[in-house]
Amino acid sequence: MRIGVLTAGGDCPGLNAVIRSVVHRALVGHGDEVIGFEDGFKGLLDGHYRPLDLNNVSGILARGGTILGSARLERDRLREAAENCGELTERYGIDALIPIGGEGTLTAARMLSDAGMPVVGVPKTIDNDISGTDRTFGFDTAVGVATEAIDRLKTTAESHQRVMVVEVMGRHAGWIALESGMAGGAHGICLPERPFEVDSLVKMVEERFARGKKFAVICVAEGARPAEGSMPYEKGLVDQFGHERFTGIGTRLAIELETRLGKEARPVILGHVQRGGTPTAYDRVLATRFGWHAVEAAHRQDFGNMTALRGTDITMVPLAEAVTELKTVPDERMYEAESVF
Amino acid sequence: MRIGVLTAGGDCPGLNAVIRSVVHRALVGHGDEVIGFEDGFKGLLDGHYRPLDLNNVSGILARGGTILGSARLERDRLREAAENCGELTERYGIDALIPIGGEGTLTAARMLSDAGMPVVGVPKTIDNDISGTDRTFGFDTAVGVATEAIDRLKTTAESHQRVMVVEVMGRHAGWIALESGMAGGAHGICLPERPFEVDSLVKMVEERFARGKKFAVICVAEGARPAEGSMPYEKGLVDQFGHERFTGIGTRLAIELETRLGKEARPVILGHVQRGGTPTAYDRVLATRFGWHAVEAAHRQDFGNMTALRGTDITMVPLAEAVTELKTVPDERMYEAESVF
Amino acid sequence: MRIGVLTAGGDCPGLNAVIRSVVHRALVGHGDEVIGFEDGFKGLLDGHYRPLDLNNVSGILARGGTILGSARLERDRLREAAENCGELTERYGIDALIPIGGEGTLTAARMLSDAGMPVVGVPKTIDNDISGTDRTFGFDTAVGVATEAIDRLKTTAESHQRVMVVEVMGRHAGWIALESGMAGGAHGICLPERPFEVDSLVKMVEERFARGKKFAVICVAEGARPAEGSMPYEKGLVDQFGHERFTGIGTRLAIELETRLGKEARPVILGHVQRGGTPTAYDRVLATRFGWHAVEAAHRQDFGNMTALRGTDITMVPLAEAVTELKTVPDERMYEAESVF
Amino acid sequence: MRIGVLTAGGDCPGLNAVIRSVVHRALVGHGDEVIGFEDGFKGLLDGHYRPLDLNNVSGILARGGTILGSARLERDRLREAAENCGELTERYGIDALIPIGGEGTLTAARMLSDAGMPVVGVPKTIDNDISGTDRTFGFDTAVGVATEAIDRLKTTAESHQRVMVVEVMGRHAGWIALESGMAGGAHGICLPERPFEVDSLVKMVEERFARGKKFAVICVAEGARPAEGSMPYEKGLVDQFGHERFTGIGTRLAIELETRLGKEARPVILGHVQRGGTPTAYDRVLATRFGWHAVEAAHRQDFGNMTALRGTDITMVPLAEAVTELKTVPDERMYEAESVF
Repeated sequence: MRIGVLTAGGDCPGLNAVIRSVVHRALVGHGDEVIGFEDGFKGLLDGHYRPLDLNNVSGILARGGTILGSARLERDRLREAAENCGELTERYGIDALIPIGGEGTLTAARMLSDAGMPVVGVPKTIDNDISGTDRTFGFDTAVGVATEAIDRLKTTAESHQRVMVVEVMGRHAGWIALESGMAGGAHGICLPERPFEVDSLVKMVEERFARGKKFAVICVAEGARPAEGSMPYEKGLVDQFGHERFTGIGTRLAIELETRLGKEARPVILGHVQRGGTPTAYDRVLATRFGWHAVEAAHRQDFGNMTALRGTDITMVPLAEAVTELKTVPDERMYEAESVF
Repeated sequence: MRIGVLTAGGDCPGLNAVIRSVVHRALVGHGDEVIGFEDGFKGLLDGHYRPLDLNNVSGILARGGTILGSARLERDRLREAAENCGELTERYGIDALIPIGGEGTLTAARMLSDAGMPVVGVPKTIDNDISGTDRTFGFDTAVGVATEAIDRLKTTAESHQRVMVVEVMGRHAGWIALESGMAGGAHGICLPERPFEVDSLVKMVEERFARGKKFAVICVAEGARPAEGSMPYEKGLVDQFGHERFTGIGTRLAIELETRLGKEARPVILGHVQRGGTPTAYDRVLATRFGWHAVEAAHRQDFGNMTALRGTDITMVPLAEAVTELKTVPDERMYEAESVF
Repeated sequence: MRIGVLTAGGDCPGLNAVIRSVVHRALVGHGDEVIGFEDGFKGLLDGHYRPLDLNNVSGILARGGTILGSARLERDRLREAAENCGELTERYGIDALIPIGGEGTLTAARMLSDAGMPVVGVPKTIDNDISGTDRTFGFDTAVGVATEAIDRLKTTAESHQRVMVVEVMGRHAGWIALESGMAGGAHGICLPERPFEVDSLVKMVEERFARGKKFAVICVAEGARPAEGSMPYEKGLVDQFGHERFTGIGTRLAIELETRLGKEARPVILGHVQRGGTPTAYDRVLATRFGWHAVEAAHRQDFGNMTALRGTDITMVPLAEAVTELKTVPDERMYEAESVF
Repeated sequence: MRIGVLTAGGDCPGLNAVIRSVVHRALVGHGDEVIGFEDGFKGLLDGHYRPLDLNNVSGILARGGTILGSARLERDRLREAAENCGELTERYGIDALIPIGGEGTLTAARMLSDAGMPVVGVPKTIDNDISGTDRTFGFDTAVGVATEAIDRLKTTAESHQRVMVVEVMGRHAGWIALESGMAGGAHGICLPERPFEVDSLVKMVEERFARGKKFAVICVAEGARPAEGSMPYEKGLVDQFGHERFTGIGTRLAIELETRLGKEARPVILGHVQRGGTPTAYDRVLATRFGWHAVEAAHRQDFGNMTALRGTDITMVPLAEAVTELKTVPDERMYEAESVF
C-alpha cells in the first residue's frame, strides 16, 4: 500500500507524533510506502512531496511543529483538487490519503472523500472543538502552557495586589479557558459560549478585595464577548491608520476593569506560545494512537472517516459528523467550574 | 449538611485539589460544613479531625501531597470501624463521608457503606488501575514525570551508546509504563500483564546496534516479570543479612542485559518522584470535578458509589464494581503500542 | 539581636527564599528575633509588622511572590521615614533592617542608612541591572520563562512560516532579552542599550527567507527603541479616548515588520509571567545565600552595604555604589551574541 | 582557518550548544571551515570526521547529547596521539583543535598541546569540579533536575511521613548535592568533601519527628562516605555471583536509616536523568559563550588554554591550571548551607 500524509491548518503540538506513528505503523507493521506532501493540500496540488522512511521521523516524537510544513489554501484550489481527485490519486499512486488538520482541513477532506478519494482524517486542534471525539491532541499541551502561566501570575498578583487578565486561545469554543482556568484556580472565567457581564466581574473582584483577598486572576478566551450593553465604550485599540490591531478581549477587559475598579489590571496575552513546542505525554500518546489507527483504517478500506477518542478507545467517526457543528462547552461544565461568568 | 472528608493510601498528585473542591462546593455552593479527618481512617476512628473552611484550602490546588495526611490502617481496626459505623457517624454528626483513596480505601469504603454509613468514594491511584473509571487523577502526572525522564535519558543513551532501563511504577497494571513508554518513544516496554522474554529484548537491542542505532531505552513497570526460564539466574540483590533490598526488576534486567549484550546497561529507578509534587493541569481538572460531583452525590443521597470519568462525563459507579477487579492493560493497547515485549 | 525585614518593589522570584533564609539564619544560627514589615516601607512607617518564626517560613522556599507583600511608597513618605529613622528603629526595637528590593528600594535604604539606621540591603531585580553584583536572583527565572516561550515559538514559526516578535522585560537594561535571545537562538535581539535599525531587521528576515529558512524569531526588550528615522510612522495603539495603551515596542515592531515584509508577523508579550512563580534552583540558591550573608553582616555591624555576588563569593558592596548607575549590557556582550541589532 | 572540534567523556547538557556556537562563529564570523571528529579522540585517531556547516547545527541548541558522539579512549592510544600529533594536525589540515570535555579530556588536551598541537580546550562537567572556571555548563541543568525531584519528594514525604534519601551525581565533588540540597530545602546534605556521621543524621531526623515535622529529605552525593565507624555494617548489595552492583551510598544510607530509626526510608537514585536532555537557559548561554571564545582564541593563536568563566567574563586559563586539582566544595560553602552533615 502507498499512503500519502499531510498536515494543514494552524500549528498544534503532536503533529509530528502523528506523522511518525503513521510512518512506523505503515512501514514496520505493513510494509507500506509513505509519502509526505509539503505545506498541506498545496503540496498535493503542486506535486511537492517526499518519501518518508524511519530515519525521516527519527527524533520527532517530542518536537513541536510539523516536519511537513503547513499552509493555508484558497477555497478555489480545494475545489480544483476535488474535481481532479481521481487524477491526483493516480498521479501519486496513493491508496490512501491521511490529512491531519482542524475543521477546515476535515471539511476539505470530506470534499475529497465525497469526490472519491480514499481518505482517512486525523482531527487536530488545540481548541478541542471538533465534534465526534472526546479530545484532540494539542489541547492538553495548550492547557498546560496556559495553566503554568496562571500559576505564575497568581503569586505575583497576590503579593502585589493586582488584577490579572489572561487571554488564552479559543475563538469559538472556550475549552482552553475553562480547563486552564479550573486548573489554575482562576477567579473568573469568560467563554465564547456565554456573553459575560462586566458588572459581575467587577463585583466579584470588589468582594474579594473587601474580604482581604486583594488580587484576582481572570482567564478569558480570545472569543469571549461581553453581554450587550455590559461594556458600553468597548473598542479595540487602533493604529495610526485607524485599523484595530492585536487587541483582543483580554486587553480591552483589562482596560475596562482598571477604569471601573480604580485598581491596576494587567492583560497577559499568551498567544502562539500555546501552539508550539514539545507536546505533553498525553498529547503524544493520543497523537500516536490516532496515527496508528489511521493506518489500520486505511488497510480496512475504512474511508471517509476520521479517528476519534471515545472514552479510552480509538474509533472511526464519519467526517460528515465531525464537521457539521463545533463542540462547544456545555452548560453543565460551566456550572461545575463555578467561576464562569 | 455536614460532610467528612479523608485521604488514605499512597501519595498521589491531585489529592489536595479534591479536598479543595469538596470544601468549595460544599461551603459556597450549599452552605455545608466540612470536617477533615487526619491520616485517613485513623483520624475517623481516633477522633482526629478539624473543620475545613475556605482559608484552609487556599493555595493548595497545585500542591502535591495531602493537607490531611494519610496512613495505613490495619484490617482489624477497619472492621472495628464498620461495626461501629452508626456510632461514628453520630459522634461526628456527619451526613456524608467522602473517602479519597485507592483500591484498599475503596474496599474499606464499601465495608462502611454496607454497614450503613453514607459514603461517596473518590478513586485515587497514580497506577490508573481502578475499574469503572476511564482515568484516575495522579496518573497523568506520573506519566509526565516518567516521560520527561525518558526524554532526558534518550539523548544521553544515543550520544553515549548505552542501554537504559527505566523502571516506573505499576505493581499490578502497566499503564504508566505503557503510556510513558509510548510518549517517550521507548524501544521496549515490559508490563505486569505479560511476562516478557529477555531473549526478545536482547535481540531487539542487537538489531538496533546492527542498524547503527547504537542505543536503546527500555521502560519497565515495577511489576513486570520475565517469562519463566527467560532470565534463569535472576535474583535480587541482598544486603549483609541476606535480605533482598530495593532491587526491582529494573535493576535486575539491567544486570541481565549488560551480561548478555556485553554493552553498558544502566538502570534508572524513578521511584517516589512519580508520586509527588505539582499535579498536571489534566489531573487538577479531573480531581476538581471529582470533588464537585462527590458533594453533589452526597446532596442527592447517592451513597455507596464513587465518582468516575466516562468519556467526558463524571458519573457515579457502585463501589462494588470498582473494587472487584483491577483494570489492567488489554491486549489491544499492547498491540497498538508496538514495542511491548 | 532583633532584625526587621521587608520586601519592596515589583515581584521577583526568590523573595520568599531570602525571607526564609534570613529567618533561618537569624533564629537557628544566632538565636535572634525577626519581624517582617508588611507591604514594604509602608509597613515600617505605619506599624504593620508581624514576628516571623520557622513555621511562618516553612514551605515558602519554592513559592513565588512574597509573604510580606509589597507596595509602592511615595517619595515624601520615604523622606519622612529618613527624618524619623532614629525613632522608627527604637519603636520596633530593631538592631538591623534588611530591605530586599530593586534600585528604588536600595536608594531608599541608602537614605535611611545615611540617616543613621542600621541597614543591610539585599538587591533584587529580574532585570539584572543593579551595579556591584554579578547577578541578582529572579533574573535566571525570568530568562528561563522567556527562553521556554522562544523554544515553543520557534517550532511553530518554522512550520508555519511566520515572523514572531517576543517582547520580554527590561526597561533600561537588556539582560533578559540578551540571554533569553541567546538561549532560545533568536535571529534578532533588540536592546535598550542600542537603538536598532528596522531596515537591518527587515534585511535579515528577507535573507533568511531567501535562503529557505522561512521564519524568524526576534526577541525585543520592552525598553528597546528604533534608531531615529528607522520606524518613521511608529506610533502606539490608542484607546477610544486617544490614550496609548499596553502597546509596547513588541507590538509596534510586529506591525512594522508585517507591513514592510508582507509576511505575517505576530507579537507575543510575555509580561508578568516572567515575574512570578517558582524560582529556578539557581535563583533559590542565590537568594538563600544573600539572606544568610545579610544576617551575618548585621551581626558584624557591617551596615550601609548590600549583599553582592562576585564570581562565586558573596561579598558586601556599599549601597552608594549599587545605586549610582545601572548595570547595562556592554558592547562586548552584544558583539558576542552576534544577533544583536 | 580550519578548525577541528570533538566531544569526549560523559554526557553533559550543553555540548551541542558549544558545537553550534563554534560552527556559527567560525563560519559566519571568520569564514573558517569546521570539521567534527566522531566519538571523541577516537575519531581523531581513526580518521572519522565530517565537515560541519550551518545546516548540521540547525536546531541543536536546545538538544541534549552530542551530535558528534563520545567514547572513552584508552590511555595508550592517547599517548599514540600525542606522539603523532604533528602528523595528525597535518593529515586533517587543521589549524586548531577544540576538544570539549571534562578532566580526562582536558588532561589529554594538555598532552597534545604540550606535544605541539594547537589546542583550545572547552571545559565540560555536570559536576562543576574543574578548577579555573567559576562554573561549567551542564551543572545548572543537573542541579535543576535534582531540585525538581527534591521538590516532588518533599510533598510526598511530608504527607506520608517518610524519610527520603536522594542520591545525586558527584563522585569527587559535592556541588550538585550542595546546590540542589539548598534549592530543594533538604534537611540533610552529605558531600564527598566531608565524611558524615550517621548518628548526626539520625539525631536530626528524630528531632524533626519530635517537633511534629514527621518527614525528612536527605540529599547525598554519590561520592559521599560515612565517617569511619559511623556505619559499621555498611556493605553494598551483591548479586548472585557475590558482586556488588548498582548500590551506591544512597541505597545503603536508606537501609541504615530505616534500621536505626524504625521508620520507612526510601532511596531515590536519580542517575543518568541528570546528564541528559534539554539544557537550561543558563547552560545554553554559558556553552554558547565558551564556543564563541574558543574560536576567538584560536584566531589569536591563544593555544594551550581553555575557556573559563570568571565573574561575568569569559577568560582563558592554562590547561595545566585546570587539571592539577579538582575544585571541591570549600568549608565556607558548607557552613553557609547549614544542613551539611
